[in-house]
Amino acid sequence: MSITTPMGFVASGLASGIKASGALDLALLATDDGEAVPTAATFTTNLAAAPPVRVSRDHLAAGGGRASGVVVSSGNANAATGVQGRADAEAMCSLVAGALGVPDHQVLVCSTGLIGIPLPMDPIVAGIPALVAARSGAHQQAADAAAGILTTDSGRKEELVEHPTFSVAGMAKGAGMLAPNMATMLAFLTTDAAIEPGPLADLLRIAVRDSFNSMTVDGCTSTNDTVILMASGRAGTVDPNVVVDAVTEVCVGLAGQMASDAEGASKIVHIRVTGARSDGEAHRGARKVADSLLVKCSLNGEDAYWGRVASELGSAGIEFDLDKLAIAYGGVFVCRDGVAAVHDEGAVSGHLAGPSVDIHCELGLADGNGVVMGVDLGYGYIDENRTTS
Amino acid sequence: MSITTPMGFVASGLASGIKASGALDLALLATDDGEAVPTAATFTTNLAAAPPVRVSRDHLAAGGGRASGVVVSSGNANAATGVQGRADAEAMCSLVAGALGVPDHQVLVCSTGLIGIPLPMDPIVAGIPALVAARSGAHQQAADAAAGILTTDSGRKEELVEHPTFSVAGMAKGAGMLAPNMATMLAFLTTDAAIEPGPLADLLRIAVRDSFNSMTVDGCTSTNDTVILMASGRAGTVDPNVVVDAVTEVCVGLAGQMASDAEGASKIVHIRVTGARSDGEAHRGARKVADSLLVKCSLNGEDAYWGRVASELGSAGIEFDLDKLAIAYGGVFVCRDGVAAVHDEGAVSGHLAGPSVDIHCELGLADGNGVVMGVDLGYGYIDENRTTS
Repeated sequence: MSITTPMGFVASGLASGIKASGALDLALLATDDGEAVPTAATFTTNLAAAPPVRVSRDHLAAGGGRASGVVVSSGNANAATGVQGRADAEAMCSLVAGALGVPDHQVLVCSTGLIGIPLPMDPIVAGIPALVAARSGAHQQAADAAAGILTTDSGRKEELVEHPTFSVAGMAKGAGMLAPNMATMLAFLTTDAAIEPGPLADLLRIAVRDSFNSMTVDGCTSTNDTVILMASGRAGTVDPNVVVDAVTEVCVGLAGQMASDAEGASKIVHIRVTGARSDGEAHRGARKVADSLLVKCSLNGEDAYWGRVASELGSAGIEFDLDKLAIAYGGVFVCRDGVAAVHDEGAVSGHLAGPSVDIHCELGLADGNGVVMGVDLGYGYIDENRTTS
Repeated sequence: MSITTPMGFVASGLASGIKASGALDLALLATDDGEAVPTAATFTTNLAAAPPVRVSRDHLAAGGGRASGVVVSSGNANAATGVQGRADAEAMCSLVAGALGVPDHQVLVCSTGLIGIPLPMDPIVAGIPALVAARSGAHQQAADAAAGILTTDSGRKEELVEHPTFSVAGMAKGAGMLAPNMATMLAFLTTDAAIEPGPLADLLRIAVRDSFNSMTVDGCTSTNDTVILMASGRAGTVDPNVVVDAVTEVCVGLAGQMASDAEGASKIVHIRVTGARSDGEAHRGARKVADSLLVKCSLNGEDAYWGRVASELGSAGIEFDLDKLAIAYGGVFVCRDGVAAVHDEGAVSGHLAGPSVDIHCELGLADGNGVVMGVDLGYGYIDENRTTS
């Protein structure tokens, strides 16, 4: 699978020297002919949004929802870098645009890594000509691009969905800090379906809501999160509903890879809330449970302490009646009518010992449903995040 | 210091057998003559509030803001225990009231411990007569009461503020899960100042806001949190402003003891936000930083990674302009105008290596101020909370 499987795209990646380790740290995704194609993006809601986020937002607006490509650097977030950070992000676009022979605003930019440190521009300026020259539709260059966007990830994250008439591909980075509103994650998606900028933006919003925004690792929302979807149109018009499903499928796949790779996590958990007053309340309740430090510790210890789940739902700011609550682990109800239920303890222990845990909370109020994916909390998360060195 | 230093109170504690360890698990605080005195209480906002919380709320309302005493059990929260839990909480009050010779509604009740397990009433029923009989104004019985309310705490938590004409005393429990709205904490306060129920309730609200509700360990809000303040009136009328300050001082002292005793924490941190649009926004921003898993990990690692602080403020849902942000650790500014500031790194490292860390965030917008006390996140928290056995 590769980000260049959909027709009309090229990619590349290289090690410019931003990372002391010598790992790949620059990536390019572009149309094969430099043409600006319909492009949609979702950015972090953090008010401390990094300069590259602001530049990409401005460029996409200037281009009327069309772009020729995106350049990505990893190892330094170019966040909390002020006026110089903005100039550096603009310079990255300008250098790539010059090499592609397109206007600056047709190039978007993303950076990921540590916050508050000036971007080292020397290796980036030196690396961009070779990065652009290396662009290709071949698998190797696509793999280099997928590697060039990584930070603490254990490996590349790529997804592909192929239909008879079109395809959707994606690459992403993100291992810790996955949270509401896409904390510290980048994802780049391509499709050869023909879709205009407006419908493309609507479609991406739905796909992101049902994937990246329905997962959480630590509840933190980062300064650089971005999802970009480019549509080359080479495969012609496709039923929009089919495209939404395909893009969502790619996003869900990438989100699952991120959760599996979450720092210090040993388990993935799906918190499903049903019977809420609305879908929104169900989602909020599920997120409160998934973000609970105490619930995450219980998962790490494989302990079916449902009292903590009930307590989180009771303080989630949603309509709640303890007397109507039922909770099941792996389909086995441990709580009914708000009190302990006799159950098969071996079945629950067996389920909790596995790598994927399902917790179902039925609120018994109305028909609102929501699912949030989360992870447990172990020593590894602390180890990974204690220091930046 | 002792909960019975203010005139007019008696206390006691004993081991009834709720705790397998044989530790003290029942406590009583009462007026020395059984008279119902002005009493105020603040309860958890959790919608899964435990039966004892509901019973105490009802009894205090029935008594018109007056009570003769409170009985406390530790080792089992009597939460998520349904109709039987309510009957058990009522029975505890009734047994104590009978022994004191007062109406049932003059006795309040609190429980703390594991959720979702029926309260073992046999030891409680057997223990209450001896508990009531042992009540005394002596230090030993007050110490037994302060021990009888503990769960995972490492020791008794007591405070006393003495003025020439009156005094305020307090005892509390709470070591993990300290959070907004007083998660899993109980505090009992006495004063001999004469104050009517209405003003007493107002006074307690202020004291709790500025102490227990300005600290957080893990952001969880429990099912049983309660603060109760009884005023015997034996010392006569006192300037209400002086009483507010004294009660707040006792609460701040108890809150500090809880934070110092927080599960797995090695440091206390005070997050001070100034220059916010309002005090409320400053408080919300400070809480977002104090609750951040990433900030807590950085504190554990003694790492001055201010970028995470900036990122949390940017996603706190408050007005924020990164370009106006300044951040200081221990008074040393590491960020000004939203970018890294040259600073004395040795001074910052030295400050972070200590047991108490101060982080000051100046937002530069208006004059709203707020402080929240929190702790770091270490292995010990996970160890303590992985399993309930």
